[in-house]
Amino acid sequence: MDVDQAPSDVPATGQVFVEHHDSLATVTLSNPGKLNALSVAMWQQLTSIFQQLAADRQLRCIIVQGGGNNFAAGADITEFPTYRHDEPSVMHYHNGILAPALAAIATCPHPVVAAIRGVCVGGGLEIASQCDLRIAARTARFGAPINRLGFPMAPHEMQGLLRLAGPAATLEILLEGRVFDAAEAQAKGLLTRIVDDAALDEAVEASVRRIMRGGPLAARINKETVRRLESGPDTFTADEYATLFRYASTHDHHEGVQAFLADRDPQFSGE
Amino acid sequence: MDVDQAPSDVPATGQVFVEHHDSLATVTLSNPGKLNALSVAMWQQLTSIFQQLAADRQLRCIIVQGGGNNFAAGADITEFPTYRHDEPSVMHYHNGILAPALAAIATCPHPVVAAIRGVCVGGGLEIASQCDLRIAARTARFGAPINRLGFPMAPHEMQGLLRLAGPAATLEILLEGRVFDAAEAQAKGLLTRIVDDAALDEAVEASVRRIMRGGPLAARINKETVRRLESGPDTFTADEYATLFRYASTHDHHEGVQAFLADRDPQFSGE
Amino acid sequence: MDVDQAPSDVPATGQVFVEHHDSLATVTLSNPGKLNALSVAMWQQLTSIFQQLAADRQLRCIIVQGGGNNFAAGADITEFPTYRHDEPSVMHYHNGILAPALAAIATCPHPVVAAIRGVCVGGGLEIASQCDLRIAARTARFGAPINRLGFPMAPHEMQGLLRLAGPAATLEILLEGRVFDAAEAQAKGLLTRIVDDAALDEAVEASVRRIMRGGPLAARINKETVRRLESGPDTFTADEYATLFRYASTHDHHEGVQAFLADRDPQFSGE
Repeated sequence: MDVDQAPSDVPATGQVFVEHHDSLATVTLSNPGKLNALSVAMWQQLTSIFQQLAADRQLRCIIVQGGGNNFAAGADITEFPTYRHDEPSVMHYHNGILAPALAAIATCPHPVVAAIRGVCVGGGLEIASQCDLRIAARTARFGAPINRLGFPMAPHEMQGLLRLAGPAATLEILLEGRVFDAAEAQAKGLLTRIVDDAALDEAVEASVRRIMRGGPLAARINKETVRRLESGPDTFTADEYATLFRYASTHDHHEGVQAFLADRDPQFSGE
Repeated sequence: MDVDQAPSDVPATGQVFVEHHDSLATVTLSNPGKLNALSVAMWQQLTSIFQQLAADRQLRCIIVQGGGNNFAAGADITEFPTYRHDEPSVMHYHNGILAPALAAIATCPHPVVAAIRGVCVGGGLEIASQCDLRIAARTARFGAPINRLGFPMAPHEMQGLLRLAGPAATLEILLEGRVFDAAEAQAKGLLTRIVDDAALDEAVEASVRRIMRGGPLAARINKETVRRLESGPDTFTADEYATLFRYASTHDHHEGVQAFLADRDPQFSGE
Repeated sequence: MDVDQAPSDVPATGQVFVEHHDSLATVTLSNPGKLNALSVAMWQQLTSIFQQLAADRQLRCIIVQGGGNNFAAGADITEFPTYRHDEPSVMHYHNGILAPALAAIATCPHPVVAAIRGVCVGGGLEIASQCDLRIAARTARFGAPINRLGFPMAPHEMQGLLRLAGPAATLEILLEGRVFDAAEAQAKGLLTRIVDDAALDEAVEASVRRIMRGGPLAARINKETVRRLESGPDTFTADEYATLFRYASTHDHHEGVQAFLADRDPQFSGE
């Protein structure tokens, strides 16, 4: 059986939506009645949506959220007997289905803001960890309670947590398998900021507005530079420098400096 | 003189004990009247105890604590004129005696929880830093006040602190040589959690219970994956994947998923 | 035009001063009326001052501060049309002028304490990030609000922030471009400690006294070991070990241990 094909006896549930408002895209994880638990179909939609968004140079920012009152529970475990039951299918599930979705978010050139309310555990937490900013409602809940399921976190999934929370907090989360509140998640490095539940939408919009007022190419180069500095030695080739400094001759760079010197608002075009 | 052999004029003091309760082992650092300062004999006992515990596949968790009301002061400095006085003996003391003890804890496959009350400084802090979780009494005290002794922290000892606290807090601790409280230690990343002194035993037991309710193989693979992701590039060989996904065909993995789907408690066997 | 030479139509403003008090040096960033914004001349003075301080083996500690009531705003943007306007000059400005100044601080063998009041943004924050300790007045303000200028942070400048705040907080700072207070800066890992404004001088002096009471060679080896462990694999060559343990045969090391055992204050000579 090709595990990428849903067999007829397992009705695929859940969906990932994307909506566009000018240069802002909003991605919604939706699996009603299942706390937005991520089905195989949803992981695959997430991959293809982020690949498309990455290629859209008109975009300036992406919001990731859950439908209803939750971000996302982990994987949809009712699918496990079908898709994830022996060594080859387990490995394919993690390396061939989840890892590409997380990588598509991680390598997206546009700034990505996660808006988190309700449950954000397991695969939900893994998705949020790949976003650039994580803004959470105070009552949101976090964790990766998979130790009771008898399995560890796969390497490509763990990387996102390690990057934010470091080795000690990541292991604590996995070894104890507790579900914890937003304040603890922030103390562990997992969240950018916490706001009252009623203020979440406004806080996310304010962050997005700030991001979109900046130069889009500058934002992309900042993301690229962070990735580059994390993943290798800090010596750069001439080609890498040329790439990282390519903004210097763009319209937006001249506009930004000239607007500052003239004490007016800059008008960025993305060029 | 072989520095591994205590000469007759230096009475060896202190001892490291280990007790077993089913699948839980408790390791106790004990040097009464010396705040459990670590003698050469104790470092060597710590190494051999952790090597034995690592090989015991029936174990599910290890607690490390100090005897009496302290975790451990640093090294037993009264031994320095004998064991650690010139360049070869200083290098052997750090690389040949302390480093193997710390490495034995760091590479132990079982989850290790440090229970910390009282003094946890120098070598005591280095031991605690190699454990997976660090649960401390509110009045515990931390630091590495060796700058007044005219010597730096050796590389293998510093790694544990760097991993938890990062370069800036590690250097602050070493350059200033202050002793600080549990709240500051937690803010620096050195502690998993702080509880009231009277609640320490219960908090450690609760953490151990949580850990032992999870699948033991999953816990070991999580520890292995964290180490692997910290120490190398994030590309894995087929062999490494086979190792990290070896759990997929085990009893415990099937039991965990089936118990979840049947809404019952899983019974993990470690197989 | 050689961008290192100020053309006659751009009056060079600002200056970096250094004062010596016995084994303590104080470096002051000063550009009155411009919040100590850093001109090209100041970056170059900073480089040469730190190169000289690095070579002075009598030194035990360095304080970096701003003149008046601010640490430093970023670069002096009024100089951009002259020094930083097209791809070659932008690259030279960042790689040839700023990067060497930051590297001179980062590689300085002596402990460096930043005393921060008022504005500490952009280039000011980059300088502070290269110091070993950062002690800030409660009302100080932080950020890198360059996204409105249409340009990203250059790699050598970003490294200092990444080392303290990690990838998520670094990107948040750059993508949103907010200016934030000292409490938020400390939560992000950017500060060692915060004190009331009136207590800043005393807190910096207390930290410097603590540092200077320790052995100077031990402090330098601690700095070296942190850098070494951050930048490479944790296997050391025999030569590296010989360097890191060279303190063992020094006067100060023997003095420190002997003073401890005799319960008296050590007298360190730096030898």
